[in-house]
Amino acid sequence: MSNQLMRIGIVGYGNLGRGAEAAIEQCSDMKLVAIFTRREPETIKPNQPNVKVLHISEVEKYVDEIDVMILCGGSAADLPEQGPYFARLYNTVDSFDTHAKIPEYYATVDKVASAHGKTSIISVGWDPGLFSIHRMMTEAILPNGETYSFWGSGVSQGHSDAIRRVAGVVGGVQYTIPIDAAVQKVRAGENPVLTTAEKHRRVCYVVAEEGYDKEKIEHDIKAMPNYFADYETEVHFITTEELQANHSKLPHGGFVIRGGHTGNAHKQIVEFSLKLDSNPEFTSSVLVAYARAAYRLNQEGQTGAKTVYDIAPSYLSPKSAEELRRTLL
Amino acid sequence: MSNQLMRIGIVGYGNLGRGAEAAIEQCSDMKLVAIFTRREPETIKPNQPNVKVLHISEVEKYVDEIDVMILCGGSAADLPEQGPYFARLYNTVDSFDTHAKIPEYYATVDKVASAHGKTSIISVGWDPGLFSIHRMMTEAILPNGETYSFWGSGVSQGHSDAIRRVAGVVGGVQYTIPIDAAVQKVRAGENPVLTTAEKHRRVCYVVAEEGYDKEKIEHDIKAMPNYFADYETEVHFITTEELQANHSKLPHGGFVIRGGHTGNAHKQIVEFSLKLDSNPEFTSSVLVAYARAAYRLNQEGQTGAKTVYDIAPSYLSPKSAEELRRTLL
Repeated sequence: MSNQLMRIGIVGYGNLGRGAEAAIEQCSDMKLVAIFTRREPETIKPNQPNVKVLHISEVEKYVDEIDVMILCGGSAADLPEQGPYFARLYNTVDSFDTHAKIPEYYATVDKVASAHGKTSIISVGWDPGLFSIHRMMTEAILPNGETYSFWGSGVSQGHSDAIRRVAGVVGGVQYTIPIDAAVQKVRAGENPVLTTAEKHRRVCYVVAEEGYDKEKIEHDIKAMPNYFADYETEVHFITTEELQANHSKLPHGGFVIRGGHTGNAHKQIVEFSLKLDSNPEFTSSVLVAYARAAYRLNQEGQTGAKTVYDIAPSYLSPKSAEELRRTLL
Repeated sequence: MSNQLMRIGIVGYGNLGRGAEAAIEQCSDMKLVAIFTRREPETIKPNQPNVKVLHISEVEKYVDEIDVMILCGGSAADLPEQGPYFARLYNTVDSFDTHAKIPEYYATVDKVASAHGKTSIISVGWDPGLFSIHRMMTEAILPNGETYSFWGSGVSQGHSDAIRRVAGVVGGVQYTIPIDAAVQKVRAGENPVLTTAEKHRRVCYVVAEEGYDKEKIEHDIKAMPNYFADYETEVHFITTEELQANHSKLPHGGFVIRGGHTGNAHKQIVEFSLKLDSNPEFTSSVLVAYARAAYRLNQEGQTGAKTVYDIAPSYLSPKSAEELRRTLL
């Protein structure tokens, strides 16, 4: 690698953007040049004093000063617009995670990035991302078998939002928790047939509006289709103070387990697991490693949209191929 | 992918060669063409009747009939010679696992493969191989942290061989077992300082020559430098019948754990683990998946020696990039 630092930009300064900022500080081959925001730039104080904070409308002015832009917006409203917009101007990485819409998003970003000679790695993080790599590699290595993805224990943002839309609810948080009996069967290589609802239970901590009927709230949550109706769901009522004191962190995790059979019915179990104190900080750490890959691929002329499936592991490391072979293989 | 089946050859028909044969049978995009052996070919009966069994001296005759040769010999005596020899004629994959000699082996194979337009993926399996990928990717994602590789519970071939060289020993097997207290500390993210000996204990089952002093055998095993002297070692004496009945399988496994910190001291734990009923069958299943990659890379003109670090995950799967994005991402 050259001694020139990779120059990084961040778009969006929520949990993910702050996580990316912290992750870049741990990388001696990168520097954060600027944070772009839709808010008033003056309201944001970055960790490092020499990082610019700019309004997102200024983004076209920095094409010669930034090598890779890390898009830290959400998949529902931000990325469908920002992904193709930025791929025209910069190499990008993003964490687009609406699984069903990935093919469409890929096609849109690929068209723009290819046309402008940029490299865009989409759907990076842990799921989609590291979990996807595991599902794919273990299936390729053990074609005769079953793969199970478990999520949790951790806070599901989507389910927490759903609770907060229920009448009479002031605040709340939802933890997705793998069901132990299901996990044990899968780890033992029994390859059971399990729906998502048979693998996970849902535990809600809810602050009710004063005087509101708690039984009705509990019923309304548990009856919610898709989110809770099919699941074993617990609802606990707590105070606003308890919510803030005990449930303001964003831990998460999960595991991907492949149970396969080789030769004369030998069981082979492969597991990848994560236990994360901070989901957004881990996700953004993955984004930052793939930013390194986006830059290098682009330097090699490999343009267009990519996913984690297209990236050889060596592109993620600041170490040279020779050093990797010598020290880590 | 075209409908043409990938044509595979196997060199060596020990545990690994038989495992590769079984793994190829699970792959609908491949066929096993021939097994090459140093033994009398007539002594080998392959699983499928249409597979040729040939003496290794005939290997040059099949260059137009085989796309990838899977080298199933050992790292000590076979591969240093066979690796460069076959890389001149065929695309190859092998499981060269003498960590300290990988750079030298890589350079030798790379020179030959590059000169002859072949693609050789070396040091494939689970360690080196899948464990190497994990050590590297988790270090790149969480630069501030520690990585721990644990091996076992499982049979160590090298240590079993060492036992059998002790005077008075007729037969024996050695299990490497991770020390639970060490594992728990690492899983909890405590990032302790641990030597290999502090992470593993060694349990030996030994058949003694009749009348030989067992105390002396036990002492000689436990005193063996490098292999046992630094370790907590148990020696159990058993009969030849017990050895055959209870210790003829080759289970193995292990885990790679990275404990990292992000942002404001948030702990992030990433673990990859294997629980294998058959070590050689799993290793050869990994070799077969990377044989697919060797073929494709060669089709694209990417020649020379490669390691698992150089291979994008998508090359391992028989599915198209579009299908992978749609179904597994």
